Amino acid sequence: MFEVNSNYGELQGSYLFSEIASRVAAYEQAHPDADIIRLGIGDVTEPLMPAVIEAIKKATDEMASRDTFRGYGPEQGYAFLRDAIAEHDYKALGADISADDIFVSDGAKCDTGNIQELLSPSSRVAVTDPVYPVYVDTNVMAGRAGSYNKEAGQYKQIVYLPCTAENGFDPALPKEKVDVVYLCSPNNPTGTALNQLQLQKWVDWARDTGALILFDAAYERFITQPDIPHTIYQCSGAETCAIEFRSFSKTAGFTGTRCAYTVVPKTVFGQDASGTKVSMHDLWLRRQTTKFNGVSYIVQCGAAAVYTPQGEAEVTEVIDRYLKNARIILDGLAKIGIKAYGGVNSPYVWLQTPNGMPSWDFFDLLLNQAQVVGTPGAGFGSAGEGYFRLTAFNTRENTERAVARLGNLSLT
Amino acid sequence: MFEVNSNYGELQGSYLFSEIASRVAAYEQAHPDADIIRLGIGDVTEPLMPAVIEAIKKATDEMASRDTFRGYGPEQGYAFLRDAIAEHDYKALGADISADDIFVSDGAKCDTGNIQELLSPSSRVAVTDPVYPVYVDTNVMAGRAGSYNKEAGQYKQIVYLPCTAENGFDPALPKEKVDVVYLCSPNNPTGTALNQLQLQKWVDWARDTGALILFDAAYERFITQPDIPHTIYQCSGAETCAIEFRSFSKTAGFTGTRCAYTVVPKTVFGQDASGTKVSMHDLWLRRQTTKFNGVSYIVQCGAAAVYTPQGEAEVTEVIDRYLKNARIILDGLAKIGIKAYGGVNSPYVWLQTPNGMPSWDFFDLLLNQAQVVGTPGAGFGSAGEGYFRLTAFNTRENTERAVARLGNLSLT
Repeated sequence: MFEVNSNYGELQGSYLFSEIASRVAAYEQAHPDADIIRLGIGDVTEPLMPAVIEAIKKATDEMASRDTFRGYGPEQGYAFLRDAIAEHDYKALGADISADDIFVSDGAKCDTGNIQELLSPSSRVAVTDPVYPVYVDTNVMAGRAGSYNKEAGQYKQIVYLPCTAENGFDPALPKEKVDVVYLCSPNNPTGTALNQLQLQKWVDWARDTGALILFDAAYERFITQPDIPHTIYQCSGAETCAIEFRSFSKTAGFTGTRCAYTVVPKTVFGQDASGTKVSMHDLWLRRQTTKFNGVSYIVQCGAAAVYTPQGEAEVTEVIDRYLKNARIILDGLAKIGIKAYGGVNSPYVWLQTPNGMPSWDFFDLLLNQAQVVGTPGAGFGSAGEGYFRLTAFNTRENTERAVARLGNLSLT
Repeated sequence: MFEVNSNYGELQGSYLFSEIASRVAAYEQAHPDADIIRLGIGDVTEPLMPAVIEAIKKATDEMASRDTFRGYGPEQGYAFLRDAIAEHDYKALGADISADDIFVSDGAKCDTGNIQELLSPSSRVAVTDPVYPVYVDTNVMAGRAGSYNKEAGQYKQIVYLPCTAENGFDPALPKEKVDVVYLCSPNNPTGTALNQLQLQKWVDWARDTGALILFDAAYERFITQPDIPHTIYQCSGAETCAIEFRSFSKTAGFTGTRCAYTVVPKTVFGQDASGTKVSMHDLWLRRQTTKFNGVSYIVQCGAAAVYTPQGEAEVTEVIDRYLKNARIILDGLAKIGIKAYGGVNSPYVWLQTPNGMPSWDFFDLLLNQAQVVGTPGAGFGSAGEGYFRLTAFNTRENTERAVARLGNLSLT
């Protein structure tokens, strides 16, 4: 019988959100009339903006006529979208990124998951803890994580960098030799963001040690504070050591529409087994042209509309609405004496559970007492224990109702 | 400096279609007024059908309103689409495939490229020769192909199964131990199809030897002859040894719209390094939920419209138009004494070059004498040498004009 990739056998249990779904389903079955408010999974709730809708419909009309129909497009994305991205997301900030450094894709989850294919199987990987599970699981599948240490809740070959209130959510540089580090800022799940100095420290470290930074900036559009960089390429030297991931999912409500992009500057090099320098841009281009066929034309047209004056205004309005929700949650938590972080440059609020309660216990308490669903911090890694994530992705009304219920929690 | 995946270094030169594009560009530069007709790359030319356009617009309207907006969908695809696929593409043919065996994706290229991640790095892979390059290149990237033998034009660890006029395009079963075989029927590039008996032979072999069949049926909708199976699951026992790939690209003109699906029956098992049986369905589910975020909702709605009575009628009309083009090409080639295959259950015509001319020479001859672009067989593998692919993907007018020019070729 043929043999499978045995690394999959090292993956742990079910995915965080399946466990949440099953606990909520059990609660609903026991309480069929419960009015549950979901501040758990990080999915948007506001509809697509008028500018996007209009662009998608116009593109759909083009697909209906032979003269304007589009078949296969460039795997890297259409020039009209890559140009708009380079102009608005980089050049406008003084970051020297050109359109052909940009690879349009159908999701940052795909790209952050697939990027590790370009690395040697023996690469030493570091992640922050807590962490978006995809970074770890995709390296487990590739055999880079080693076996799982149940007691520690960690893989033996992965380097975990704790990221907690104690260190101000600014993880220390790894002490051991590391080849690749995943950084996410503004962070999922903590909602905190690295400032210019903190991020520059990582870029300097990568340049000094010859490491690669995989920088996930999916939540960039939520940044409000002036000292938080919008792209890692605002840090000096990042164009030689960093790959950046961006998405229209949270920016423009594309979680169900699917469009993202990855920036691989032509100045990022690794080396092969024989020590020859290899361009990461060339490798990713080869990977994408071989295993991917580009994003739907109509979706790319929708994404490009985000960069029109109308699109920009509509995006800002929606983001502001979510950020106001986050502010309401932060204020509500402060009022009942729960410490919380994030929510200022991010749609995520990361609270410390009262009296150090285990985060799954707090999940059950919140569901039972307030019919509010959140995400237990422990689901994102062992350093997430004692924390809990609430999201601003909901209507104003539901956010206010949820916060009102928090006021009635019995926490002792 | 961090180390890359050195297997990429074994990939050969540029992709087939880039070389074609550069030769065509050079010709155009030298002959700016040339009226070139492209029968090369396998891309559709007819626009999306009215039923599909209408469904996409309706779905786009849903995305514009908070009550009907869709965020993240199930990674495996929406039930409405998986149900329609199971019903129309399988149950209607008596094949016992259920909706939850089906994984909707954004392309058969992605799925046929990604599926090898589930296999052990040491798996022995067999492909037909000629072959769709993605099957080989993705295994090269994963280190299963070994080094390249320039003289043979083959990778040392890959088992090549010649598929030529001599064996009626029915490749012999491998003599050596093979773990996985990629089969494509109707075939790209040869345009030929395996009949029920020929395909059953492969299923029986896989069951006897414990091998896995990766069956690419992207061109299924072009089948016209009654003894050609539409799915491998019409063969007895295939549900225990085969994974099937399908696409809306060629069926319904989705090359630029992006939707496909893969069938992984829950009865297909491999074994891990310790000999424990492992469900391929479970592995693919884990892979897809970890590295993929589902297909755009509006695109899935468009794909589902293909299964409505209006959609089915419109698809049939377009497919018939392409098949008539293929017939015109076949007749034109017969008239000038060029032997050709395929084109009956496929949009591809696979001709034998006159006087055994090398296929890249025939490419240049056709471009220079007739301003017609096709695809050299050698680009698909060494057994493709002496063959050449023409496609039916064009307008009737262009097809007829191209065929008229063939009549004036000077072939001696």
